Amino acid sequence: MTTQQHDAQHHADHVDHADHVDFANPALAVTVGDACVNHASHGYIHDKDAYLRRMRRIEGQTRGLAKMIEEEQYCIDILTQVSAVTKALQSVALGLLNEHLSHCVVNAVREGGAEAELKLTEAQQAIARLMRS
Amino acid sequence: MTTQQHDAQHHADHVDHADHVDFANPALAVTVGDACVNHASHGYIHDKDAYLRRMRRIEGQTRGLAKMIEEEQYCIDILTQVSAVTKALQSVALGLLNEHLSHCVVNAVREGGAEAELKLTEAQQAIARLMRS
Amino acid sequence: MTTQQHDAQHHADHVDHADHVDFANPALAVTVGDACVNHASHGYIHDKDAYLRRMRRIEGQTRGLAKMIEEEQYCIDILTQVSAVTKALQSVALGLLNEHLSHCVVNAVREGGAEAELKLTEAQQAIARLMRS
Amino acid sequence: MTTQQHDAQHHADHVDHADHVDFANPALAVTVGDACVNHASHGYIHDKDAYLRRMRRIEGQTRGLAKMIEEEQYCIDILTQVSAVTKALQSVALGLLNEHLSHCVVNAVREGGAEAELKLTEAQQAIARLMRS
Repeated sequence: MTTQQHDAQHHADHVDHADHVDFANPALAVTVGDACVNHASHGYIHDKDAYLRRMRRIEGQTRGLAKMIEEEQYCIDILTQVSAVTKALQSVALGLLNEHLSHCVVNAVREGGAEAELKLTEAQQAIARLMRS
Repeated sequence: MTTQQHDAQHHADHVDHADHVDFANPALAVTVGDACVNHASHGYIHDKDAYLRRMRRIEGQTRGLAKMIEEEQYCIDILTQVSAVTKALQSVALGLLNEHLSHCVVNAVREGGAEAELKLTEAQQAIARLMRS
Repeated sequence: MTTQQHDAQHHADHVDHADHVDFANPALAVTVGDACVNHASHGYIHDKDAYLRRMRRIEGQTRGLAKMIEEEQYCIDILTQVSAVTKALQSVALGLLNEHLSHCVVNAVREGGAEAELKLTEAQQAIARLMRS
Repeated sequence: MTTQQHDAQHHADHVDHADHVDFANPALAVTVGDACVNHASHGYIHDKDAYLRRMRRIEGQTRGLAKMIEEEQYCIDILTQVSAVTKALQSVALGLLNEHLSHCVVNAVREGGAEAELKLTEAQQAIARLMRS
């Protein structure tokens, strides 16, 4: 779904749904609201499967690291692997941040108001955390 | 020496050498009993259980990250978690590097020769990788 | 637009445009008055003096570092100082990035079109470079 | 010993000791001639001129950054330059750390005792600071 489609969807949501709909149809409500806010599964992450594959490989690598420590494998080999996992995690983070900026932040900015401020501040804080970690 | 060679060496050690061999053949003992070289389980990692617990928590966190992506939870929450995992990994790496410097590099330097050079160069390269990741 | 083109544009602006031009030619004003594009000194950096003071302190610190090396001061003291300068630089970068996102990127997004895409991509690339450095 | 004390020691060395003192009093030489402790200009930094050139280029780059901010040049161009300066600083730090490990830490380890412990701990703390900055 493109950013434009999201926008269309978003405005449709505002027309069709009031707050109480959540109670009338909770399963739908989760889907209907803004995925930038309520985590609903609208595919806000472009190519989610690719991210899942990357995270599962990272999970496997961390399991491998525990095994390397369990077996007291050579320290330098363990450190090399930690560097690789850290880079893979940062790369996932950067990809997700880009999606968030292109989608959630852009949408909030277009609507303006307090939500735009909030989304920008949140994104800036996340960038600061990523730069420090 | 590759990881595989290390492993082969490791298994050979378990067959061929008992603790007292060190005294029978001190020159060999340097190689054999040196966990810095052969990955044998001689406790070169001080408080190994603590490291294992930390790695298992990190593994759990990466599994949690996959779940957050699967459920398309809020992007900023995912990024916050990635920063936390990255910091935890870097902290484990720093701890292992310190053990490696205090134990393996120090031992190699005391013995001197080509092994000291090799161990130093390896450690410096690992530090460079960690600084960049 | 390349940096060189920006510069050329920048110098042209200083020759050709006064503040009131914005009103005489509103269509142009978007380009001319937009410090995000043409580098003109319109105060796009909030509290520029504070940034200048920070950069001059950093410049002084790098001069101090050269002196420490010249005098072969203790290596660890030099490294401590390098860490401090690096942190100060990253903090300036984060501040400028935040101003850029809040001002230039937000403006571009509101106007939409190719410029919005370009500004977002540029910002994402800058974030990636800062995370890696 | 503080940096200031180091400096005082440093100037005393220049008055009191010539190169041949090392041979006349080798036990003392370890303390006196050891640039790792007293900052004396005995060339503990291999190719000092190269490091000075690098630091002066970095100093020039930070001056250029102040000018870019002064002129309110395009934010992304400033951020690109900050990333370059940060990388250059980290590279100098890594080079100096390597010299410190290969020379000062190795010497301290060979002598053993409390000084070896101190030098290792100092180096580990410096590495931790560099990884975080």
